[in-house]
Amino acid sequence: MNRNPQLNADGNLRHLLTIDGLPRALLTHIFDTADGFIAVNEQEVRKVPLLRGKAIFNLFFEPSTRTRTTFEIAAKRLSADVINLNISASSQSKGETLLDTVDNLAAMQADMFIVRHAQSGAAHMIARHVAPHIHVVNAGDGRHAHPTQGLLDMFTIRKYKGEFHNLCVAIVGDVLHSRVARSQIHALTTLGVPEVRVIAPKTLLPTAVEQMGVRVFHDMESGLRNADVVIILRLQNERMRGAHLPSAQEYFKYYGLTAEKLAYARPDAIVMHPGPMNRGVEIDSSVADGSQSVILPQVTYGIAVRMAVMSMLAGN
Amino acid sequence: MNRNPQLNADGNLRHLLTIDGLPRALLTHIFDTADGFIAVNEQEVRKVPLLRGKAIFNLFFEPSTRTRTTFEIAAKRLSADVINLNISASSQSKGETLLDTVDNLAAMQADMFIVRHAQSGAAHMIARHVAPHIHVVNAGDGRHAHPTQGLLDMFTIRKYKGEFHNLCVAIVGDVLHSRVARSQIHALTTLGVPEVRVIAPKTLLPTAVEQMGVRVFHDMESGLRNADVVIILRLQNERMRGAHLPSAQEYFKYYGLTAEKLAYARPDAIVMHPGPMNRGVEIDSSVADGSQSVILPQVTYGIAVRMAVMSMLAGN
Amino acid sequence: MNRNPQLNADGNLRHLLTIDGLPRALLTHIFDTADGFIAVNEQEVRKVPLLRGKAIFNLFFEPSTRTRTTFEIAAKRLSADVINLNISASSQSKGETLLDTVDNLAAMQADMFIVRHAQSGAAHMIARHVAPHIHVVNAGDGRHAHPTQGLLDMFTIRKYKGEFHNLCVAIVGDVLHSRVARSQIHALTTLGVPEVRVIAPKTLLPTAVEQMGVRVFHDMESGLRNADVVIILRLQNERMRGAHLPSAQEYFKYYGLTAEKLAYARPDAIVMHPGPMNRGVEIDSSVADGSQSVILPQVTYGIAVRMAVMSMLAGN
Repeated sequence: MNRNPQLNADGNLRHLLTIDGLPRALLTHIFDTADGFIAVNEQEVRKVPLLRGKAIFNLFFEPSTRTRTTFEIAAKRLSADVINLNISASSQSKGETLLDTVDNLAAMQADMFIVRHAQSGAAHMIARHVAPHIHVVNAGDGRHAHPTQGLLDMFTIRKYKGEFHNLCVAIVGDVLHSRVARSQIHALTTLGVPEVRVIAPKTLLPTAVEQMGVRVFHDMESGLRNADVVIILRLQNERMRGAHLPSAQEYFKYYGLTAEKLAYARPDAIVMHPGPMNRGVEIDSSVADGSQSVILPQVTYGIAVRMAVMSMLAGN
Repeated sequence: MNRNPQLNADGNLRHLLTIDGLPRALLTHIFDTADGFIAVNEQEVRKVPLLRGKAIFNLFFEPSTRTRTTFEIAAKRLSADVINLNISASSQSKGETLLDTVDNLAAMQADMFIVRHAQSGAAHMIARHVAPHIHVVNAGDGRHAHPTQGLLDMFTIRKYKGEFHNLCVAIVGDVLHSRVARSQIHALTTLGVPEVRVIAPKTLLPTAVEQMGVRVFHDMESGLRNADVVIILRLQNERMRGAHLPSAQEYFKYYGLTAEKLAYARPDAIVMHPGPMNRGVEIDSSVADGSQSVILPQVTYGIAVRMAVMSMLAGN
Repeated sequence: MNRNPQLNADGNLRHLLTIDGLPRALLTHIFDTADGFIAVNEQEVRKVPLLRGKAIFNLFFEPSTRTRTTFEIAAKRLSADVINLNISASSQSKGETLLDTVDNLAAMQADMFIVRHAQSGAAHMIARHVAPHIHVVNAGDGRHAHPTQGLLDMFTIRKYKGEFHNLCVAIVGDVLHSRVARSQIHALTTLGVPEVRVIAPKTLLPTAVEQMGVRVFHDMESGLRNADVVIILRLQNERMRGAHLPSAQEYFKYYGLTAEKLAYARPDAIVMHPGPMNRGVEIDSSVADGSQSVILPQVTYGIAVRMAVMSMLAGN
């Protein structure tokens, strides 16, 4: 049997590499565990001893202060020892291979690697390589996956909408280059969301995106109609010129989420964004800061979800 | 009533942004609290649990290993979790605004921001923006203020001179560009020092500096006469050529503190410097390392003063 | 009497600057202490409170994520507070002298400095300068010494070979530029290894290297004959062209450790390398990953040895 490499023989989470293929019950278990950590984060002393004495390495081959910080905070609230490694400036420049670097850190009795890498599959490669007691969390690999972001988005939806089986969720923007969108789509379909839509110009959609289980729209009016959840993707600056897009202004005109366009969705729709936002490009400030925005709660829930994943992987 | 934004309704410290406008009793309370932490720092185990589980972010938009380190040590001795963010290399480069960055970190349940920024007013802007339970400490904003430096300088003077009401304090050097000097002058006048002097060439003094309550001198002999405390300011390298100053040698000749010039002051005068020193430019090594120098005690007291401020702001 | 500056009057370790001159009994005491920490590192909670409340500064004037990380992990497992300072980007650029930087950190009540510096003698200079209660560990200074690397190598040999008095140890490669090789040779001769060899082309050997107590070989076949331990040195990329070496390929042909060449040594010989490895230059992957390689155990033992040194220096 070709077992999911993320799961142990007894079905428990061993690594978190992608949401693709994870059973719905496991996602629900992560959310239930995260619910408990919400309370911890509201305590006077935001600290539990679940990972005391564990060594967690933030292995960032691509810079991301923001994501690294969320993992660092989550790990410290679990009482782990956190070591931050910005690898571009390190051994890699001395010609050591990725797996030699990992072997060395593992030999220092690492318990978990949080891996961000520009190449799709990097976290998988590390997970296949390490000894059974070491856990790997993919914190973003190329265009492939960013599973903790997908999980925190689902946790946010559950907090605001309660259930998944009756929702219409629209994802707007650069799906083509977005590992976040891939993780969201896998999570939404696994959780039984009946209608998942993507809204984007053709140049920002992968070929055959429908095979992921989504409906494709090219305009906001029809795409947002009856949506319960509107997820805006970040538009990378480097896409805004050249082949993919004429200009940021043009993009904003057609796909930037304004109050007018949001009115196409259901009146109680929530608006999400993985951050950091380009205000006035993919989202208007009036929406980002408006009453339907749950963008900052996403960040708060992200800490609880990461604490849940880390404690499920390596908890004492 | 236009209440001081640094104080709560009950007069307790909520933020530390500037010494300007803080009541003398509050400064004295900070010093008394710092006195208690001196003992902690001399213990075998230099640790108290006052900020256990609190998340303190060192938000440095301008690099300063030295100041960042003092806050990091102070926070760790209070058992807080410290996260260092060097923001120039981070989200700001992805086009996120300063307040979006702050909102995101606040959503991760930050308790305190230690802010260093090249623009005057940055810490104030953040303090106005954050929720009531979040505290902001200004660790230097443009030419405006560096209040913990000012406080540690006053604490040092109190340690060596006992009282303020009978002192003559001379501040020597580049007052024009110095946030440290501004904070010192506010503190000295608040604490009732009857004679505060500045000694500098005209090109290194702000216009109308007398309105801050200081006497202006342009030569060391008359300016240092009868001084109990001599505070030497750091001369930024970038001022040493061009409009402000002919050369470092010329500056040293007229304003560099040598043993000869120090002899103008009272025989028991103490010599202070906020560091890092330019030996042979604003201060001669014989004075920096001499018996009247309290430059290293300033650093030691700085840890205790920062522990005092942080625990008063966010202590459990 | 010209007492060893690394030892207190009662013969205890005060600093660790070089292995040269340390008595054999002290090395043995370090290894015995490290043996105890092996067990700590295999516990569920890898943490002992020996350095709780101590402030340890990683003072790296030369970048080295790898070595810095091993000290950081060792210190955290001893419950110390660790502050990482990358000094090239800091006060040094503001013109402060090395000793002023050290004085400032000492005034923050530092307990220990871990110093890496491109100049030979930097750690010694700091050790001579600091107050008696502050400890200095040399983490590599120029071409001079890297004593914790030398100690962990000896600890590894003791683990695999049990005793030193009957061993033949061959060190292969760029001895000329290697502080690691210097520390290894001092340790091996102190521990009573009867035959210490170096194998290298003449251009990569210091003049009069025999005076360190080693036998010189220029070819692998005779140099590896009967060796119990083969230590491969890293070949710095910058040596591979120009005066010292014709090319990496040429070097590999004559001095790269392959399975064929390893067969000259004793069948139970172990292979060591301080890392990071240049696979296919100084060592072939079949050997690096082979059954005789103890390269990753070296890393594991390195944590225990550094915990031993740090706790002997500053333990409560």
